[in-house]
Amino acid sequence: MSQLTVGQYQFIYNAFSFSIATMGAATVFFFLGRGQVSKGYRTAITVTGLVTLIAFYHYLRIFSSWEAAYSVVNGTIRATGAAFNDAYRYVDWLLTVPLLLIELILVMKLSGAETTAKGTRLGVLAAIMVALGYPGEIASSLGMRWIFWVLAMIPFLAIVIELFVGLRASIDKQPQEVRGMVSAARWITVLSWCFYPVVYIFPMIGFTGGAATTAVQVGYTVADIVAKVAFGVFIYVIAVKKSAAEMPEVPLTVPRLVDVS
Amino acid sequence: MSQLTVGQYQFIYNAFSFSIATMGAATVFFFLGRGQVSKGYRTAITVTGLVTLIAFYHYLRIFSSWEAAYSVVNGTIRATGAAFNDAYRYVDWLLTVPLLLIELILVMKLSGAETTAKGTRLGVLAAIMVALGYPGEIASSLGMRWIFWVLAMIPFLAIVIELFVGLRASIDKQPQEVRGMVSAARWITVLSWCFYPVVYIFPMIGFTGGAATTAVQVGYTVADIVAKVAFGVFIYVIAVKKSAAEMPEVPLTVPRLVDVS
Repeated sequence: MSQLTVGQYQFIYNAFSFSIATMGAATVFFFLGRGQVSKGYRTAITVTGLVTLIAFYHYLRIFSSWEAAYSVVNGTIRATGAAFNDAYRYVDWLLTVPLLLIELILVMKLSGAETTAKGTRLGVLAAIMVALGYPGEIASSLGMRWIFWVLAMIPFLAIVIELFVGLRASIDKQPQEVRGMVSAARWITVLSWCFYPVVYIFPMIGFTGGAATTAVQVGYTVADIVAKVAFGVFIYVIAVKKSAAEMPEVPLTVPRLVDVS
Repeated sequence: MSQLTVGQYQFIYNAFSFSIATMGAATVFFFLGRGQVSKGYRTAITVTGLVTLIAFYHYLRIFSSWEAAYSVVNGTIRATGAAFNDAYRYVDWLLTVPLLLIELILVMKLSGAETTAKGTRLGVLAAIMVALGYPGEIASSLGMRWIFWVLAMIPFLAIVIELFVGLRASIDKQPQEVRGMVSAARWITVLSWCFYPVVYIFPMIGFTGGAATTAVQVGYTVADIVAKVAFGVFIYVIAVKKSAAEMPEVPLTVPRLVDVS
């Protein structure tokens, strides 16, 4: 990482700050927007906001760790000796990646038993996937990195199969007006997640030095914003549409004796 | 920037602090005021508050960066060696400028399809405009600065055309009592935004040294307050008026059998 230029250092620094602002704003959006959906969808939106809140916290830590790891002296970057703590990302994913899948299951409003079964299976697979990625991330040899990459891909593929095969019947039962969006939400999940194993192998395919560090840090940051915020907005819109379909607004001509808002 | 006088340094410093106070207070106002408008306008007010919240965060960062970049020693300003991070402004605008246009679209309450179409088009144009401004801002040559100024003006003009031609029919359909205000909101947008390209060219028209730095920093700060807070209050008043017009308050003489609020 010592080959970082000042421009690369600052680009990563600004990307982290951008993520803090985005995750924080998204959290407020989801928590305020909770009241706009009917009760059956509020837990889905709560979880959506928790994901961005957890990421907001971790990006604050990542930002501070990055700031502490380097100093700019007379236009050059010097490592201060304090190591940049990459583990924050894995701690974040260990919490947020299972929650992201649970968001999707909750907004589908399956039966209680199905919600528990599918939420648990997907959540556990996601946690195993993240846990298997970490030993490779901190491994000093490229061989170990490859081994854990392959191991983490097994639960990842199991998640993809569960989303596209296991959930097919449930998606067909979604209301007409949101079926396409729920299906698209799976695609956002899978496509945005594909980014992580790709970024992970950058150092393994000869991509090293400051450019690799920049690609990895900015790549993970962009992937996090897509997977958590863009995906979350999608979940929110699905919840708003389903709420509206289930409970049409009372026409103004009808006397409103009871106002439960 | 080394030609800054102590007075100029402090003026900028105080302008940043003023902006922190204004953005923070505006955020609280919008979030508390959300409950005063009917459900259909709450998302518009949420977005209005998010814009000032994001700006509040960035002004805290800008203030700290400014404080770290200079020290006042025996009545003269010395650069500490830590660079003032101008990128915070662009990171802020990348998020807030699209959201400002989305605020306007949301408060107009168009059809779902129109909201998505117009919101997406204006939001993307705004993001492109900001992204094109940044390479010029950090360019060392005035030629590059002019090139990116011209490039960023293209999406800016497209936004102006969209606001004044594309939205004309939708504005004519707004309720009588707010039509003038919605139309004026476009003018606030365009006029407050004109400030940015003007401030941007200060260094290109021979305006250099401490006076230029002061004009740029204070100019951007004032423009941000007008474009985000004053514009936001306008959006809020439109939402309050439209809410009142759509759902007249129940006269007090009507017995209120059940009030579960």
